[in-house]
Amino acid sequence: MPRIVMKFGGTSMAGIERIRHVAARVRREVEAGNQVAVVVSAMAGETDRLVQLCREAASLYDPREYDVVVASGEQVTSGLLAITLQGMGLNARSYMGWQLPIRASGHAAALIEGIDVEVLERVFDGGGIAVIPGFQGVTQDNALATLGRGGSDTSAVALAAAMKADRCDIYTDVDGVYTTDPRIVPRARKLDKVTYEERLELASVGAKVLQTRSVGLAMRYKLPLQVLSSFEDRPGTMIVGDEAIEEEIMERNVITGIAHDKNEAMVTLTGLPDNPGTVAAIFAPLAAANVNVDMIVQSVPRRGEPSVLTFTVPTAALAHSVAELEKVRDAIGFEEIVTETHVVKVSAVGVGMRSTAGIAAKMFETLADRNINILAITTSEIKVSVLIPEEYTELAVRVLHTAYGLDAEDGE
Amino acid sequence: MPRIVMKFGGTSMAGIERIRHVAARVRREVEAGNQVAVVVSAMAGETDRLVQLCREAASLYDPREYDVVVASGEQVTSGLLAITLQGMGLNARSYMGWQLPIRASGHAAALIEGIDVEVLERVFDGGGIAVIPGFQGVTQDNALATLGRGGSDTSAVALAAAMKADRCDIYTDVDGVYTTDPRIVPRARKLDKVTYEERLELASVGAKVLQTRSVGLAMRYKLPLQVLSSFEDRPGTMIVGDEAIEEEIMERNVITGIAHDKNEAMVTLTGLPDNPGTVAAIFAPLAAANVNVDMIVQSVPRRGEPSVLTFTVPTAALAHSVAELEKVRDAIGFEEIVTETHVVKVSAVGVGMRSTAGIAAKMFETLADRNINILAITTSEIKVSVLIPEEYTELAVRVLHTAYGLDAEDGE
Repeated sequence: MPRIVMKFGGTSMAGIERIRHVAARVRREVEAGNQVAVVVSAMAGETDRLVQLCREAASLYDPREYDVVVASGEQVTSGLLAITLQGMGLNARSYMGWQLPIRASGHAAALIEGIDVEVLERVFDGGGIAVIPGFQGVTQDNALATLGRGGSDTSAVALAAAMKADRCDIYTDVDGVYTTDPRIVPRARKLDKVTYEERLELASVGAKVLQTRSVGLAMRYKLPLQVLSSFEDRPGTMIVGDEAIEEEIMERNVITGIAHDKNEAMVTLTGLPDNPGTVAAIFAPLAAANVNVDMIVQSVPRRGEPSVLTFTVPTAALAHSVAELEKVRDAIGFEEIVTETHVVKVSAVGVGMRSTAGIAAKMFETLADRNINILAITTSEIKVSVLIPEEYTELAVRVLHTAYGLDAEDGE
Repeated sequence: MPRIVMKFGGTSMAGIERIRHVAARVRREVEAGNQVAVVVSAMAGETDRLVQLCREAASLYDPREYDVVVASGEQVTSGLLAITLQGMGLNARSYMGWQLPIRASGHAAALIEGIDVEVLERVFDGGGIAVIPGFQGVTQDNALATLGRGGSDTSAVALAAAMKADRCDIYTDVDGVYTTDPRIVPRARKLDKVTYEERLELASVGAKVLQTRSVGLAMRYKLPLQVLSSFEDRPGTMIVGDEAIEEEIMERNVITGIAHDKNEAMVTLTGLPDNPGTVAAIFAPLAAANVNVDMIVQSVPRRGEPSVLTFTVPTAALAHSVAELEKVRDAIGFEEIVTETHVVKVSAVGVGMRSTAGIAAKMFETLADRNINILAITTSEIKVSVLIPEEYTELAVRVLHTAYGLDAEDGE
């Protein structure tokens, strides 16, 4: 009997009318002959409200007690969904994280260590539906734990892996992963399939709600994920392993999608001495401070002359990074720290890139044709990214979407 | 080291400002050298909101899942109070019903079967404060259970009994038990001490929030209860056993207070045949339907003539009672069922009554002087009650309060 996990986010659970709609979706999967576990988020806005209460109670709140407070949101929606399913004549019951149990370590951003499935096996054997609160687990010393924001996706994937589900369906307020942001490119197309790696690189393309951590987990367990709309009744996007698209790869576009990310800031250090070890001396303190440096460009100086180093860090880490660099300025002996936040990283992503030359060249030419200045470049096996001034975001995404043949046909 | 349980109701927990105020109260008891467990209700209005959600989800909701939903309200306030106490530098932690555990049986109106105190003993040994959600427990098969509305008082008393506390303080939005409703009689006095039995009979006199069930439990374990205000800083009313007031009984007023209760409805059956067994035939179906018949008056008919029977039932059970009586009307052969809801039961309560004659006579005289018609009478060892037309409620309460010498001195 096929076994699936269905996960519904906060927007899908916001109020009894929507929960009824969710229950109807669940019923359909059960009637189609599936064994179903449902993972639910708290009602939209509820977790924010609870977090705010903790903050008001004490600015430095105990993460352990924070978990007690915020875990209640999913407890409420799982009970309500179980009641609603029962009201439709279905055999459903809720199981809290501490009841299964979902074993976790840590607090406020706990990690799932394992999920016991004996209880679930009994539920499925008896033809039942299990409703499980996302985002929560229980620690070894019997305390409530929550997984950090967006953790319900991770709960769903971990549960699907533990119960050896055939599929994990993530219901959200978008209907799948798109070739790019449809608000920028009206001709963006919904993708039928993407690979885990593409999805990780396309993090900013549609389906933003799907937590990166959960995609990584699905990849590790080779668990097919589907992102689909809880409001519209049509197939979403399957997120699968490379092997699952091997047969289709010939017919696939080389590029799967165009992503953009405004959460990067550019840092330029001028007057760097031309000594061996200078670059290492700059990045060591940033690494120690857990700052994730992404794109790096070093100007090639004439021998013995000072050079310029440019790199990007997450915007949220910019102030912190500058402070760390100021500490080593005298020791290293560079001149200025120049920062720039009005930049955007635009990426072309696709597993087909591995076997196709000229992808990067096409990107540079396309942008050059529009006189868009490239500030930095990085490439990985399945991605080419450029850093450009933020004002060109929409133009760059549109021309690249067209250049790589991603635009939908008219009327599609 | 003295050990106390402090219980705070929903009004006291409604929002972070009030929770901070509660925390300050707790700190004072800790600093005074007490070992303290705190039992909290959900924020005012929250349980109603959650119950309403369950009702919307399905009109016949599963009590087991209802418990999952409504238990969340106290989970939130216990976490928030623990955070607030920690923010004041106190060593506090929350313990859910399933963590201690508080063992319960049943759902939606579960009974507490026992409370394991090992965890609490460790907390107290380490100088800690335990914050415990009221109203909840865990069943033998590891499901959440709630105790029914107002159950947090019962949680507090049961916990105090289990941990052999010296006292259980119930903080509410009134500052104690009064000789009668102060809104009716401005000269009502707050009582320093009442006995459990008096408190049970005085259920409608001040401190209405204190659940009857919890007073019965305190009586069984001879646990001193105190009702006091969470907003004003002064002693409340101690609720104690008879033995604790024995020494004072000579100086005490014979009557402790005047109660009134508008939740009774009067039923009159006319034309009852004068057969043996008629009365039993009437009350049997009501007992079977769990209707609690209170006052009963039967007119004494001339031999062989039909008589009239009057009795009271809770107003909420009136429609149901009439329906049950209609079923047996033909079998028993009475004429009419006349109902009257505009009646009130007024009671004089006091343990001193046991050893004093003339209490009932004074009541009848006092009411007769004001031309108040008595529809029915009942007496118990410590109570005399009369049923009168509702419009006389305030007048009757005032004149009886004066007649039994309960009015406060001027300026008190």
